[in-house]
Amino acid sequence: MSPYDKMILISNQLRNIERSLSLLAWDERTYMPEGALPGRSEMNAGLAKIHHNILTSREMKKCLDKLNKPSIYEDLDDLRKASVKEITRRFEKKNNIPDEIVEKIAKAASQGQAAWTKARARSDFAMFIPYLEKNLELKKKAAEYMGYKNEPYDALLDEYEPELTAKGVKKVFDPMKKGLSDLVDEISSRGSSKYDKYNINKTFNTDTQKELCRRMARDIGFDFHSGRLDESVHPFTVGMDFDVRITNRYNEKDLSSLYSLLHESGHGMYEQGICKDLLGTPIGKSASMGYHESQSRMWENFVGRNRNFMDYLYPLVVEYFPSMEKVGIDDFYRSVNCVEPSYIRVEADEITYNLHIALRFDIELGLMRDEITPAETETVWQDNMEEYLGLIPEDPALGVLQDIHWSSGAFGYFPSYALGNLYAAQIFNTIVDEIPSLFDHLSKGEFTPLLNWLRDNIHSNGRRYLPEEMTKRLTGKSLDFKYFHQYVKEKYGDIYDL
Amino acid sequence: MSPYDKMILISNQLRNIERSLSLLAWDERTYMPEGALPGRSEMNAGLAKIHHNILTSREMKKCLDKLNKPSIYEDLDDLRKASVKEITRRFEKKNNIPDEIVEKIAKAASQGQAAWTKARARSDFAMFIPYLEKNLELKKKAAEYMGYKNEPYDALLDEYEPELTAKGVKKVFDPMKKGLSDLVDEISSRGSSKYDKYNINKTFNTDTQKELCRRMARDIGFDFHSGRLDESVHPFTVGMDFDVRITNRYNEKDLSSLYSLLHESGHGMYEQGICKDLLGTPIGKSASMGYHESQSRMWENFVGRNRNFMDYLYPLVVEYFPSMEKVGIDDFYRSVNCVEPSYIRVEADEITYNLHIALRFDIELGLMRDEITPAETETVWQDNMEEYLGLIPEDPALGVLQDIHWSSGAFGYFPSYALGNLYAAQIFNTIVDEIPSLFDHLSKGEFTPLLNWLRDNIHSNGRRYLPEEMTKRLTGKSLDFKYFHQYVKEKYGDIYDL
Repeated sequence: MSPYDKMILISNQLRNIERSLSLLAWDERTYMPEGALPGRSEMNAGLAKIHHNILTSREMKKCLDKLNKPSIYEDLDDLRKASVKEITRRFEKKNNIPDEIVEKIAKAASQGQAAWTKARARSDFAMFIPYLEKNLELKKKAAEYMGYKNEPYDALLDEYEPELTAKGVKKVFDPMKKGLSDLVDEISSRGSSKYDKYNINKTFNTDTQKELCRRMARDIGFDFHSGRLDESVHPFTVGMDFDVRITNRYNEKDLSSLYSLLHESGHGMYEQGICKDLLGTPIGKSASMGYHESQSRMWENFVGRNRNFMDYLYPLVVEYFPSMEKVGIDDFYRSVNCVEPSYIRVEADEITYNLHIALRFDIELGLMRDEITPAETETVWQDNMEEYLGLIPEDPALGVLQDIHWSSGAFGYFPSYALGNLYAAQIFNTIVDEIPSLFDHLSKGEFTPLLNWLRDNIHSNGRRYLPEEMTKRLTGKSLDFKYFHQYVKEKYGDIYDL
Repeated sequence: MSPYDKMILISNQLRNIERSLSLLAWDERTYMPEGALPGRSEMNAGLAKIHHNILTSREMKKCLDKLNKPSIYEDLDDLRKASVKEITRRFEKKNNIPDEIVEKIAKAASQGQAAWTKARARSDFAMFIPYLEKNLELKKKAAEYMGYKNEPYDALLDEYEPELTAKGVKKVFDPMKKGLSDLVDEISSRGSSKYDKYNINKTFNTDTQKELCRRMARDIGFDFHSGRLDESVHPFTVGMDFDVRITNRYNEKDLSSLYSLLHESGHGMYEQGICKDLLGTPIGKSASMGYHESQSRMWENFVGRNRNFMDYLYPLVVEYFPSMEKVGIDDFYRSVNCVEPSYIRVEADEITYNLHIALRFDIELGLMRDEITPAETETVWQDNMEEYLGLIPEDPALGVLQDIHWSSGAFGYFPSYALGNLYAAQIFNTIVDEIPSLFDHLSKGEFTPLLNWLRDNIHSNGRRYLPEEMTKRLTGKSLDFKYFHQYVKEKYGDIYDL
């Protein structure tokens, strides 16, 4: 067997474990009985350990040593080269981490999440600090083992956004902070800015919402033959190649479920669009977390909150909720595009959302650089919230304790969310050029032209190209805040009459 | 680390994979989208391979070599000895099977099941023959690698019923065939024998059935904090230690769901009763498949079809289905105890059920002994059905194609079903002695005394004792058909006025 075929065989085994872990994660958040939790953590840790052992096995090392010899590597075609690069990248990152640290990290993550759940429920930041310290300390160690370009934070960021550095993030985030803060100020200064979000004074039967969401998922192109839609406390997506599952939540007080449905469907369709030939190979997955988020945001915001999309969506909403006829299409459009500074990231609008992310990035970079301590994060959070959004969260549950990420040591994850929005804006700008009739299609509820473009240009490629190269291929340029800036200025300038 | 602790660590890893495979199996039959099937087979095969590799690893071999040295083994306490014996038994059975055969068996099972599904749908036995041949041939090879006491069939039987042999099965099945056939003849000769099974002329809302089933599961002691009840085409149970899931099916034409619920709850409560300290160790599982079946049959038949249980069940049925009041408790009792020869095993009554099993055992033993060929099984089936039950299935879907087992090479599994009934009868006979007020409790819907007895004497022990030893400990005797014989003679003698 050739070293390439052997490497693919091992990659398939890794993928089988990843798929199993995904099913465990899905089950844990949908149907798992409560008493199963302790056993489940053990299963997760057990499979993760097997995964680590196979990835860093002697067999794998032997394959990669051979495959990376110029004489062999140069004879591979481009797709195979991409696979070898990706698996080598993963191997090298993980190979030097001692088993003992891997286990400590898993344990600290598990304990940190449990502590966070309690701390958030009690809004007690002090009790969470030791867990934050422990997770941070271990991730700093891991960063040293993994290696980095400029600074330890880069090693962690690279897990989610391959090859991006803190410096690279700052390059787009700095103008973003300025540009969006200014825009928020402008909007806030308009007296007429408040629209009733999702017409909150009505109630919406949740079973009817579920039917409507299922209908929309089908309409935009989510494939139920190889997928499911379930319910969970926090919506999420798991991709297991031939089996992609999205979840949603329903609140009878508003129609936010329509937008979380569009968001998760965007993630789901990305997973469903990866070229079948790549599945099981090292590049049979999304380009990055940021790219994943670009697809969810594309459908949620660039499509779902677009004025033309209302021609499709509003009549559908009226069909399922006849009382919505009184609202009228224009007010409905405004109600789903209401901009207002708020405490909670996951409830934020298109503009303020990225400021929530910038705030988290500043803090986690400060932690990794030892410029701030875990104990100081609450104060820094409050200061930055005031600076960026004019709000001071007195209650840590509305501030520093609102997100789960740091409790499991997932430092470096947050930037993906904002990067997703920026990628989406830049890519959408290209799509509008390449599909001149795009907005007509959205009005008519014709989503195939857009989905096909995304499949052909993004989804099908899997991780063939890393984000930087992908963005250049798609748009001719590196990632730049200006596309997002222009998009929100135009859209909200119109809505808020700026 | 001591070799024992090291062995337990590896066993825990094996158990993590087994739990994951169980979740995959549960998901496949409850919620998995159709398009996921090909990827799912790969996941199953991938995890099974990892399991085999860990079980037969050099590390495991080193541990077992040390642990089986008399100087070390004799110093272990009884529980640890039982664990070492069980894992050594598993290791030795699997260690000699070449990887290549393991893979061929997995592939043939997967292809066989797919072919069986089609063949059964078309009732076309001829198209299934090559797959039956292939599976049989591979299992004969595997039996040689695994080793056996007297004959190849023993190696396969041992997978389900440790240490039992074909000879041992015949010793109880031969009198069973005679005793039950005679009884069926006697019952059939009574003109008044036909009772309307489950009062089939009514219809029963399936949502109401579901509620009633959930209520009954709770009442008898199934723990929903660490368990679930879902729906599937064929009811089944998976045990993942802290997480035990049963399923059921509902037919609006009858109340058979109540009995499949009792059956699966019996399996589920066995899994939930294994002592927590044993979980993850080699003996943290049921004593055997036959013992598992003894628990499901205990609740389904010895409890669920008992006259005293009707004092609990019938008012409950009337509560959920008020029109059942007209039936009256005595007719209801007779309707759930209707004896009548029929083609399909899973629909058979308490008495004819074991004859269905005896028929299958004769055939699979004949196949393994080369006394009959796969092509001949259809004819042998028809002949035996006529001899045992006076019926000849013209349609293979009602005969040789009705069960999935052989399509995946699971020869040696069928005896467990009948053994379960016989174990249950023998154990129930002891319980009636040890809990004199048992039938009073059943009348009153008090199930804790029985469940506690089962927990203390069976469930909690896991696989500490293999079936032969367990039966002697519980009842003072080896397994004997006479207990079951006496039970059915008394019960049905009364019902059918023999």
